[in-house]
Amino acid sequence: MTMSEKILSKKAGRRVYPGEHIVADVDLVYAHDGTAPLTIEMIEELGLRELRSRAIFTIDHASPPPNVDAAANHRRMRDFASRWGVRIFDVGEGICHQVIPERGLVKPWDLVIGADSHTVTLGALGAFATGVGSTDAAIAMLTGKIWLKVPESIAVKVDGTLKNHVTAKDVILEVIGRLGSDGANYKAVEFLGSAVEAMSLDSKMVLANMSVEMGAKVAMIPTDGRTSEWLKERVGHFEGIWPDEEANYSAFYEFPAEEIKPNVSLPNSVDRVAPVEEVEGEEVDLVFIGSCSGGRFEDFLLASRIMRGRKLKEGVRCITVPASKEVQMKLIDSGLMRSLLEFGCTVGPPTCGPCIGAHMGLAGPGETVVSTSTRNFPGRMGSPDSRVYLASPLTAAASAVEGKLTDPGRFLS
Amino acid sequence: MTMSEKILSKKAGRRVYPGEHIVADVDLVYAHDGTAPLTIEMIEELGLRELRSRAIFTIDHASPPPNVDAAANHRRMRDFASRWGVRIFDVGEGICHQVIPERGLVKPWDLVIGADSHTVTLGALGAFATGVGSTDAAIAMLTGKIWLKVPESIAVKVDGTLKNHVTAKDVILEVIGRLGSDGANYKAVEFLGSAVEAMSLDSKMVLANMSVEMGAKVAMIPTDGRTSEWLKERVGHFEGIWPDEEANYSAFYEFPAEEIKPNVSLPNSVDRVAPVEEVEGEEVDLVFIGSCSGGRFEDFLLASRIMRGRKLKEGVRCITVPASKEVQMKLIDSGLMRSLLEFGCTVGPPTCGPCIGAHMGLAGPGETVVSTSTRNFPGRMGSPDSRVYLASPLTAAASAVEGKLTDPGRFLS
Repeated sequence: MTMSEKILSKKAGRRVYPGEHIVADVDLVYAHDGTAPLTIEMIEELGLRELRSRAIFTIDHASPPPNVDAAANHRRMRDFASRWGVRIFDVGEGICHQVIPERGLVKPWDLVIGADSHTVTLGALGAFATGVGSTDAAIAMLTGKIWLKVPESIAVKVDGTLKNHVTAKDVILEVIGRLGSDGANYKAVEFLGSAVEAMSLDSKMVLANMSVEMGAKVAMIPTDGRTSEWLKERVGHFEGIWPDEEANYSAFYEFPAEEIKPNVSLPNSVDRVAPVEEVEGEEVDLVFIGSCSGGRFEDFLLASRIMRGRKLKEGVRCITVPASKEVQMKLIDSGLMRSLLEFGCTVGPPTCGPCIGAHMGLAGPGETVVSTSTRNFPGRMGSPDSRVYLASPLTAAASAVEGKLTDPGRFLS
Repeated sequence: MTMSEKILSKKAGRRVYPGEHIVADVDLVYAHDGTAPLTIEMIEELGLRELRSRAIFTIDHASPPPNVDAAANHRRMRDFASRWGVRIFDVGEGICHQVIPERGLVKPWDLVIGADSHTVTLGALGAFATGVGSTDAAIAMLTGKIWLKVPESIAVKVDGTLKNHVTAKDVILEVIGRLGSDGANYKAVEFLGSAVEAMSLDSKMVLANMSVEMGAKVAMIPTDGRTSEWLKERVGHFEGIWPDEEANYSAFYEFPAEEIKPNVSLPNSVDRVAPVEEVEGEEVDLVFIGSCSGGRFEDFLLASRIMRGRKLKEGVRCITVPASKEVQMKLIDSGLMRSLLEFGCTVGPPTCGPCIGAHMGLAGPGETVVSTSTRNFPGRMGSPDSRVYLASPLTAAASAVEGKLTDPGRFLS
């Protein structure tokens, strides 16, 4: 069996096969301030008395609230959470997909439902984690179960050693570029290979996170290497997960690590991918390093490899937003926050903010953005007339130094 | 002569008297993203070629931009600034009234015009600094001059030693409580006395800052004590300013320092002042430590006297926002930022944000706020149905620990 088939078989209580519809036990359901309002409304309408699933709310999208409606919405979430026993991570704690694993609330073999498409991020920890709508989240909270079709699995194997200036973001953009935005529709994407195994958990979360941009139902990564250590610290004892040797993948894609270059998604589609070196030169107004895709400690560490001792190009803004309070504290303790500020960055509190054009540094009309975040559809990060390149933290940093889209290979080799 | 009369005499080129209308030379004019748009519009309409005054823009009100309009506005400011030679402090640099003095751009005897009412803050440095509308700022930029009436001066003398848990904010609230919101209309308020002299510059800026809440045209403080040191570091050589012994004050108010208690402005008027101990107990939803009135290093140092080793009350948010990047860096270097985060605070980037209900943590309907900021009119910090108590950082911190309006004397004595 593949990893996803193993988990769904366990959660359905029997061996399951791709294409089947099943009802499976849910370990955790979460929603954030963008999706919780509808979840709350539905739960209250149904007139039931208790939640049968562990439930979590995070206040991370419009957080701290940039307007009165957001503040009022947060207030309703707090009120509901205290009445229904929902754990809440309030303003300043961080982005759901980062805080929940950091606090040891997810482990391998879990089935996790999140009212956010980037819930797939948690596949990096060996959980079957998928995004649903607010009302499906409500039903999962109330019943402790989810109805779903068992996905086919496809394998993405990255063997070898990445170049020094190539990151997990470049890998996943390479994959999305080849498979296309619908290349993994309703598939379980399972990442294998020595280059994946060698990655930090922060990097593995980047791979899993962006898989939804090619339509993946879930992304799964074996609990190898540094993942075990990370999990031991946070959840204590756990059982790892790997695919069986005879696991059945409906497709198998190989990506030699050495061949991958720094990549960008060109405006305005995630799957229009090109090597940075081929599209360098466009003037940049705003650089954003943050989000559930590019705001972990490693992302800032990468950026600082280029930023340290250099200065932000005059006229360019560089907004940096840690994905959680834990990341924010590590930035302080490591001296990185100070060097970001010295470079010329603005350092915000944990929030999804700029990634979704909610607040904390939007792109104006006619502006060009280089961003480590998740999506670059028109208007995603601000004005519909802005253009967003998705890139690694290294490419973002190099572009911030030069004031134009720049290959990080010019600084690192 | 009083301090303000001395400066205006110098800038008019002759001895001036209260009540006269004069034209005076301007040393510096500044505007921020809330006021610069109209200033820009007027300058462009008038068809002149150059600015005759040193001019500065700061992007501090809706910064980083929480919406596309703000981002577009900032872009227009950058564009204008580069064409007209206006120095600009962009997103993340800080609040005008803090950044401009920090960068050594104001000194005693300067005449400073700011398109913001809290420009009076700079009187703490011995400058005649006053707020004007956007169009007056445009004229001052273009001509290098300002037309104004010489104000009468009133003296506020605070002699003695403040109690350990009483701060500059408590002093100025005491003064505003006694004089009323129109008690210093179009007056130069000059702060004298041993308690004022003993204050840090951060504290003196609190006194000057809030003077506009009783209608002051300017607030003046002699360049005694630690102010000299601060100025030497930043502007190099300067000439201090003091009132003459025979200076003529139209009123003279004395406040024995020992009698001042921790004070709050009750919702919804700055001049409805009461000792905290008499109005303790209302449940608090949001605590804000920040703004040009309460976001300097000393404010966070004060708050940490109570926060260290304690925890934010569950269900309460505590938003802390340094007034500038320099303050933000000092928070990192001193370990204070870490202890704010450990307490449970959200630490934002430099911005006016919450003080003006622009973004970065607004009050929701029905919420109660304790804030170190400048004003508490209905809706100022968010919902028109929220209630704001203005208080010192000590009272704010004590209230954050208890989750209700609390006298800091319960923690310090």
